[in-house]
Amino acid sequence: MELIGDLPARPLDPAACFNQHGDPSDDGVSARSFRGPVAVVLPAGGCGERMGLSTPKQFCKLLDRPLISYTIHAFERIKWIEAVIVVVAEQHVELMKSIIQKYNHEKTQWCVGGLTRHRSIFNGLSVFVDDKFMECHLTKPKVVIIHDAVRPFVNEDILLKIATAANDHGAAGAIRPLVSTVIATNSEHFLDHSLERSKYRASEMPQAFLFDTIYKAYQKCTEYDFEYGTECLHLVLSYCNTQAKLIEGPPTLWKVTYKQDLFAAESLIKETLSQNVCVITDVDQEALQLGHCLKKMLMTQHMDVEVISAEYGKKKLCIPHVSSQESYNIIIVYISLPESTPFSKKLDEPSAIRRLAKEAKHRNILVYGLLVNYTKDSEELNESLENMCFISKSLMKDRNSALTGQLLVV
Amino acid sequence: MELIGDLPARPLDPAACFNQHGDPSDDGVSARSFRGPVAVVLPAGGCGERMGLSTPKQFCKLLDRPLISYTIHAFERIKWIEAVIVVVAEQHVELMKSIIQKYNHEKTQWCVGGLTRHRSIFNGLSVFVDDKFMECHLTKPKVVIIHDAVRPFVNEDILLKIATAANDHGAAGAIRPLVSTVIATNSEHFLDHSLERSKYRASEMPQAFLFDTIYKAYQKCTEYDFEYGTECLHLVLSYCNTQAKLIEGPPTLWKVTYKQDLFAAESLIKETLSQNVCVITDVDQEALQLGHCLKKMLMTQHMDVEVISAEYGKKKLCIPHVSSQESYNIIIVYISLPESTPFSKKLDEPSAIRRLAKEAKHRNILVYGLLVNYTKDSEELNESLENMCFISKSLMKDRNSALTGQLLVV
Repeated sequence: MELIGDLPARPLDPAACFNQHGDPSDDGVSARSFRGPVAVVLPAGGCGERMGLSTPKQFCKLLDRPLISYTIHAFERIKWIEAVIVVVAEQHVELMKSIIQKYNHEKTQWCVGGLTRHRSIFNGLSVFVDDKFMECHLTKPKVVIIHDAVRPFVNEDILLKIATAANDHGAAGAIRPLVSTVIATNSEHFLDHSLERSKYRASEMPQAFLFDTIYKAYQKCTEYDFEYGTECLHLVLSYCNTQAKLIEGPPTLWKVTYKQDLFAAESLIKETLSQNVCVITDVDQEALQLGHCLKKMLMTQHMDVEVISAEYGKKKLCIPHVSSQESYNIIIVYISLPESTPFSKKLDEPSAIRRLAKEAKHRNILVYGLLVNYTKDSEELNESLENMCFISKSLMKDRNSALTGQLLVV
Repeated sequence: MELIGDLPARPLDPAACFNQHGDPSDDGVSARSFRGPVAVVLPAGGCGERMGLSTPKQFCKLLDRPLISYTIHAFERIKWIEAVIVVVAEQHVELMKSIIQKYNHEKTQWCVGGLTRHRSIFNGLSVFVDDKFMECHLTKPKVVIIHDAVRPFVNEDILLKIATAANDHGAAGAIRPLVSTVIATNSEHFLDHSLERSKYRASEMPQAFLFDTIYKAYQKCTEYDFEYGTECLHLVLSYCNTQAKLIEGPPTLWKVTYKQDLFAAESLIKETLSQNVCVITDVDQEALQLGHCLKKMLMTQHMDVEVISAEYGKKKLCIPHVSSQESYNIIIVYISLPESTPFSKKLDEPSAIRRLAKEAKHRNILVYGLLVNYTKDSEELNESLENMCFISKSLMKDRNSALTGQLLVV
C-alpha cells in the first residue's frame, strides 16, 4: 500500500458503461478504416434558454465537473481522434479555457462561434483551413465528426461506424426511432395530419463528413440556411449532392435538453463510477473475514472489489493504489469491533477516517467508514453483513461527497 | 409533540413541483368548464421491451413505489376527475390489484388489455358502457382523458386545458416542439429528405375526447388501425371528422422510455420530496440556537423548515406531526455536544435515533442524526453550521433510506 504522489484528477468516462465491446483502437479497425486523420467539431455556443437556467447546459456541473468536459473526454480517449475544436460564445471563452486546462484536455482547442448553430460549425471547420488560425498547427482532417456538447455518452462504437460511413459515402449521421408520433398543425393549432411513425426517424448526433464536402456545402449555402437551418446532412445533400448514410445509434445518444435530462445524465455517470470498490479492513482475522464476505456480496452486484488489510493502530492509514485509471473509486473502510472492546477505545478511528477521506477527495476517491459490531453469533453476523452490503451499495449509488469521512454504524 | 397513530403511507405527488399555479379545483374553473363527469383511461399493457428490463417500466419502483402509482395519484388528487381505468396485461392483473390496494387508489379500477395499444384503450373505454362491466358501477363520462402510465408528471393545469378543449372541440392533445430534426430514409438507409422542424410537433399525452366521439371512432376503425395505429387523434379525424385542438404542454410531460428516463423521474420525485424538513434539537439553549441557525440557512435554499426541541434524556424521542400531507418529510435530529461532555456519555443517543428512524421509515419519513461539536468560538461554530447545512441538503437530495438512523458527525 503506497501513498499516491501527484496523480491528476481521474478522468470520468461516462461512455465506458455503454461500450460493451472491446476497444476498437486496439484491434486495428481504425487503421484499416481511415487513411487520413479524424477531427471533431463540438458546437457549444448555446445559451440554455430551453432549460430556463442561468448557466448554459453544456457548462452545468455534474458531480462537480462541467457536462462539456465529459463530452470532450469521450472523444479524447479515442486514439484515432486527433483534435477536438470546441466552438463557444464570446462570453464563455475564459470559462472554456479554464475547463480545458483544469481537466487536462490536451487534444482540445477552442474558437469563437457565430450567432446560429450553422455559423458556429462553419467557424469550427475554418480553424483547420483559415490562415488566421495558423498558430493552432492543425492538419486539415480527412473526416470530420460533428457532435453536440450536450451528448456526453457517445461511445467509440458509434463514432467508428459513423466516421467509416462518412469516409465511404461522404456523409453519415446517427438516427433513432421516434418516441412520439410527429404531427403537422394548421395555423389555428388544430391537427392537420400525423406522420406514419415507422417511415421517419429522429436525426441525432454524431454526424461525420469528408471535410472537403461539408466545408464546400457551407461555402455554397445561403444566408437563409445559416440563419434557420439545423441539419448539416441536408446541406451536403442540397449543395454537394451527397446522400448521407444513416446509422441507428444507441438510446444513450440522447441530448441533454431539459432539467430532467441533467438528472438522468448525473445518475448515468454515477452508475458508471460505482463499479470499483476497495475495502480496507484491520489486520485481525475477524475483520479480514468480514471484508472478504462483503467483497463476495458486492461482486454478485457486478462490482469490482478488492480487499486490503492495514494495521490501523500502528500505521498511518493511506490511500491505496487503485486499479482502474478510467473511473473514480470508492473505498469503504470498515472497522470490526470485537464485542469486548469498548466504543471509546476506538475513538481515534473516526478522526483517522476523516483525515483519509479529506486527502482522497482531492483525487475524486470517496471514503466512508463502516463500524461493524462483530459477533460470533452467525445469525447476527449474517444480518450485519447484509446491512454492510446494503449501506455500501447505496453509498456507491449516491456518491454523496458530503458524507465522506463519516463512520457509519452497521 | 405527539406520536402519530395509524396514518397510511403518505402519498407522493410528483406533479406538485411543476404545478406553479394555485389549485384549479378550488376556484370553480372545473365546475364552469364541465357539465358532465371526466374519467381517465390509462393504457399500461406494455412489456418494457425498449428498456431491456424484466419489469415493464410502468411497474418499476422509484423510491420503493411503482411508477404507475405516481401517475394514478396525479389524477386521483384532482377533484373533477371521477374515475381512472388502468388497462393491464393479463399477467399483471394481480400486481395491479395489489398496487391499487397498497397505495389506496380509491378512484381506480382495472381491466385487461388487448394485444395492441389501440385494443387496450378500446377495452378501457368499454368498461363505461359494456354490460359485462356493470358491477363496476361507473357512469359514462362526458369527457375521457387518455394518458400514458409512464408519464407521471402530468399536472392539473394541462389536464384542465386539454379536457376543456375536448369538451369544446370533440378532441384535444398535448404537443411539444421537436427536439431533433425528423428525417425520411430510403430503403437503403440513406437520407431521403428532412422535415422543416418548425412545421411539425411531437404528439404527446394527455389527450382528451368527448366519450361518444372516441368510442365511435373505435367502433368504426379497421383491423389495420387496431394493429398498427398509435395515434387516437388520427382515428377521430378519419372516422368522426373531428379535428383535434393541439395544446403546448410542459417539458415534464415526457414519457419514461429508456433507462435514463427512470433515473430522471426518480431525481425529479426526490426533488419534490425534499422540501419539508423538521429539525429536532435538545432543549438546551445552544442546541436550540443551532437549530434555528440551520433553519435559516436551509430556508434560503427554498426549504420549508420547522424546529422542535425535545428533552432527550428525560423523554422518549417521538416522531412529530409534520405539516404537509402531500409529500414525505425528512427530519434531521441533531445533538449538540458541549465541549465538556465526553463522547461516551452521549452513547445512548445513537440507539435512540436508530429506534426513531426505524419507526419513522414505515411512514416514509427519513430520520438522520447530526452530532455537532458545539463550541463558543464563533468562527468554528460558523464552519460547523455550514457543514450542517451542506450535509442536511445532500441527505435530503439523495433521500438514501439506507442511511436513516445514522448519527453523522459534523
